[in-house]
Amino acid sequence: MDERAALRLLSDELAAAGDDAAIVDGLVVTTDMLHDRTDFPDGTTRYTAGWRAVGASLSDIAAMGGSATAAVAAYAAPTFDRDELLAFVRGARDVCEHVGAEYVGGDLDGHDEFTVSTTAIGRTADPVRRSRARPGDVVCVTGTLGRSGAALRLFDRGHTDRANALFRFEPRIATGRALAARASAMMDSSDGLARSLHQLAEASDCGFAIDADRVPIADAVHDVTDGDGDALEVATTFGEDFELVATLPEDALPAVREAADVPLSVVGSVRDAADGITMDGEALADRGYTHG
Amino acid sequence: MDERAALRLLSDELAAAGDDAAIVDGLVVTTDMLHDRTDFPDGTTRYTAGWRAVGASLSDIAAMGGSATAAVAAYAAPTFDRDELLAFVRGARDVCEHVGAEYVGGDLDGHDEFTVSTTAIGRTADPVRRSRARPGDVVCVTGTLGRSGAALRLFDRGHTDRANALFRFEPRIATGRALAARASAMMDSSDGLARSLHQLAEASDCGFAIDADRVPIADAVHDVTDGDGDALEVATTFGEDFELVATLPEDALPAVREAADVPLSVVGSVRDAADGITMDGEALADRGYTHG
Repeated sequence: MDERAALRLLSDELAAAGDDAAIVDGLVVTTDMLHDRTDFPDGTTRYTAGWRAVGASLSDIAAMGGSATAAVAAYAAPTFDRDELLAFVRGARDVCEHVGAEYVGGDLDGHDEFTVSTTAIGRTADPVRRSRARPGDVVCVTGTLGRSGAALRLFDRGHTDRANALFRFEPRIATGRALAARASAMMDSSDGLARSLHQLAEASDCGFAIDADRVPIADAVHDVTDGDGDALEVATTFGEDFELVATLPEDALPAVREAADVPLSVVGSVRDAADGITMDGEALADRGYTHG
Repeated sequence: MDERAALRLLSDELAAAGDDAAIVDGLVVTTDMLHDRTDFPDGTTRYTAGWRAVGASLSDIAAMGGSATAAVAAYAAPTFDRDELLAFVRGARDVCEHVGAEYVGGDLDGHDEFTVSTTAIGRTADPVRRSRARPGDVVCVTGTLGRSGAALRLFDRGHTDRANALFRFEPRIATGRALAARASAMMDSSDGLARSLHQLAEASDCGFAIDADRVPIADAVHDVTDGDGDALEVATTFGEDFELVATLPEDALPAVREAADVPLSVVGSVRDAADGITMDGEALADRGYTHG
């Protein structure tokens, strides 16, 4: 069984699973495991790894419209190097400070491969699910897409400083709170925009019509790609950018933009399920990053 | 740097670290990572693994005197087998149900070695730290010790059903709550009684005098060991039993025993730091299980 099938199985088995994070007793809870071979390219510093791993869980809190309370991490490695461990902790703590959460430590484990498991906890009285997008809503995206895809190419080329900087994203907690008041559906873009739209469409029983030229592509993507087609491909399918993808009534946009702390780009609109998921009128395939 | 040195480093770096669980904003949070080679002997079922991994985190909540709210787990394995995954989830859910918590799922990750990372979340208004044991208090232990040490020998001998049953411990949430009202210091016995006493002594700046014949040894230990000396050794140093070790004024015992749902054995008393840590008058070495 592949990972997506296994996730569907868990979602059927557990009432609280199947969204970006679980809601229990007023708390928002999510956990993620990342490891060296699939998640941290050669050149990723431990500071970046701490930031990114904890940030990935905080992003799931943002996707539910929650505020961020705390995060923990289990850090597994073949050896415990003092400087690496401290750098990891500082990265984890810094990303938490950015969103008003407290990093409260975790566990250490001897392991063949550098592996990190993170959990973030938040609160919300009004979680935003994936399931209530309505035809006529607009669909919007926070910030820009493609940063992680660009970072991967920069790591490959040995531009590790810039790649590390791109890898340290800001979890969209504040903007997620701003969206929570009006969004009909929301998730983070960790599997890429295309796959996120397919997941929202499945949960909400709707379609989407996306305008390619409204997709906000990060500058770094243009620097590492050959032409606009390649750039759009990276921005829509690579994923791991941890931006928010949300649907909301168009008349709610001004107030949400006022309250948000990053730009919100309208990239298209919600359609009937029968209209499918299209970009510039062509079917948009369910392709994207499958997490290892 | 070995794991204990690394843990001390983290404890110095993070105000919230250094106890069984962190306290943040009225919540108790703890995370643990376990993996195949060091934590799940051959013959451990996935049901037992789910129970035990989540139970280990719930035990840390109990050790702070918290009530248990929720748990999550990240499950990493080379392949996702439907029956194994469902068995794991059922074990995780069953141990949560035992203590009134909700198991809300988690993450999946492809990984060379079966690895589980769990996080438990609880609540307490009056956490019990390790640091307030006072000379004159009694020191007591919940339940019996040595079950996991006995289970390991049973796994070795191929008695996997009994070994699995011993491996599925009941986190002491209810008794931890009963102790919280009066305990001066508390932790769980996951590193073994001897090491737990050394950790409490360091945090509270005290000593301990233990009576060997009052240490509650699990029946299973006698079945797999050669004589009383070996049994006492397993019960005091193997650890991984997830019982609670607590200090409290002797006059508080009747009320705590009334409220607890397992027997509490008084095993000795708190002494001045200068008296050291002794069992039957002999120095009790800081030996025990170092988690891999």
